[in-house]
Amino acid sequence: MTPLWQREPVGVVGLGLIGGSLGLDLMAMGAQVRALVHRPATAARARERGLATEVSIDPAVLEGCGLVVLALPLDRLLDPDPALLAALPVGAVITDVGSVKGPVLRRWRELLVAAGRFVASHPMAGTARAGVEAGEPGLFRGRPWVATPEAGTDPVALQVVRELAEALGARWLCCDAEAHDRAVALISHLPVLLGAALLQAADAGGGEIVAGAELVRALASSGFADTTRVGGGNPELGMLMARANRAALLEALDHYRQSLASLEAMVAGEEWSGLQQSLARSQALRPDFL
Amino acid sequence: MTPLWQREPVGVVGLGLIGGSLGLDLMAMGAQVRALVHRPATAARARERGLATEVSIDPAVLEGCGLVVLALPLDRLLDPDPALLAALPVGAVITDVGSVKGPVLRRWRELLVAAGRFVASHPMAGTARAGVEAGEPGLFRGRPWVATPEAGTDPVALQVVRELAEALGARWLCCDAEAHDRAVALISHLPVLLGAALLQAADAGGGEIVAGAELVRALASSGFADTTRVGGGNPELGMLMARANRAALLEALDHYRQSLASLEAMVAGEEWSGLQQSLARSQALRPDFL
Repeated sequence: MTPLWQREPVGVVGLGLIGGSLGLDLMAMGAQVRALVHRPATAARARERGLATEVSIDPAVLEGCGLVVLALPLDRLLDPDPALLAALPVGAVITDVGSVKGPVLRRWRELLVAAGRFVASHPMAGTARAGVEAGEPGLFRGRPWVATPEAGTDPVALQVVRELAEALGARWLCCDAEAHDRAVALISHLPVLLGAALLQAADAGGGEIVAGAELVRALASSGFADTTRVGGGNPELGMLMARANRAALLEALDHYRQSLASLEAMVAGEEWSGLQQSLARSQALRPDFL
Repeated sequence: MTPLWQREPVGVVGLGLIGGSLGLDLMAMGAQVRALVHRPATAARARERGLATEVSIDPAVLEGCGLVVLALPLDRLLDPDPALLAALPVGAVITDVGSVKGPVLRRWRELLVAAGRFVASHPMAGTARAGVEAGEPGLFRGRPWVATPEAGTDPVALQVVRELAEALGARWLCCDAEAHDRAVALISHLPVLLGAALLQAADAGGGEIVAGAELVRALASSGFADTTRVGGGNPELGMLMARANRAALLEALDHYRQSLASLEAMVAGEEWSGLQQSLARSQALRPDFL
């Protein structure tokens, strides 16, 4: 059967990096895209960029959509506008793109009468860009798109979202919401805090060296730049992820503190062959994560 | 006056990433390059690659060189072959490329009669590659080349190394050896331990999630890859840097532990606006380090 996104208009709520990229790819594949945005200026720019067939600040634009993708920041996803809720077509499949899944599922289970039609999902595609200029074609190609269905999730709704993800070239994955949140705490949210802490440590430490503030900045190389890339990213996004995934992030920090303490103990105790072995273990682990 | 590297042969000891790149650039600029390597197979390959005018495993190859660059790993630099020491031409300017400067200065002050002709230096150019295949043209262009002269350093010798560094397109910087070592602990050695610890934490944490070992690997994105790039690097190099720069690295770890603990406390204490402000500070710091 023809996928739902081809048969009926697709609603996209929010045209930032994820929503805009979704719009561009769907338009290129001939879909009808109806987009809801917050501000008139965003709507005007989105129309210029051709991010959707129709762009409006009026939630009524979503009327007739068979599938609606909530491409909103976590805070607005967890505390959605009542006008948006009222405008979601009865019977439509609703999915989101939030980077934390447990809180989203819990919230939307309460909000929707047909909660089984809500599919929590997370396309893992990021760039440093945000806003209406950020959307780009092909963003999802080859990237994981994780769904976290629960017992009550309608399998047909799940299939609708899967067809969308696969049409965009993403790699479809299903797992438990809690497993997802603990995994992203380790591989996505923890690196933000590590990099942010490294920047502050380099600044504080440099300040204690004679002429060190300039020296640490002059000597920082591509290795420092890479290690701090996500840690020097959008502070609001970082805070929202930490807030929505607090317990899993604290658990990840526990693991991290232990790993770091073990390496530090070998440096302090001058256990050089142990340190080399431990670094060799890290080196051997990394290719599996690429 | 014509720089020394143009007037007299330049000796290069070791033809790995730094030595090989040095050889390629010097050859391209018409210098006479005499290279000493450890193994006959390396010598043969270095000749094929055209890394030097003359390549030998016999230290006598350094005879007649006015400037000798010790492009050796830290362990061999701190514990050099007596045959190498004996072959260093009397009166030649000697420089090194080690990533830690205090221990190198202390060691070579004892080893050389004309210690003033020794210029401790550190071209900050790295790639992931090592060995005789790693050398590449233009490696030093635009990169810092730090020298750490002390009171006894001959200003003429210092100028000879500066002319070499600037001919290669590097940005010349002088600072105190202790300041250098503390700075590189913060911006170069600390990131290795952080990234290595993150890989181990992701592995250990993933192992506690149902089907998590595969999940963390499948979901890790470019952010994780970047944050762990140097942490998943050569374990021997990482260990040697830590061993040679132990005190400064432990001090850097202290700073880091404090920065991370402060961020963690805000997550634990749900101080979300404080966390966002702190992440904004990290974001604002980062461009200065690029």
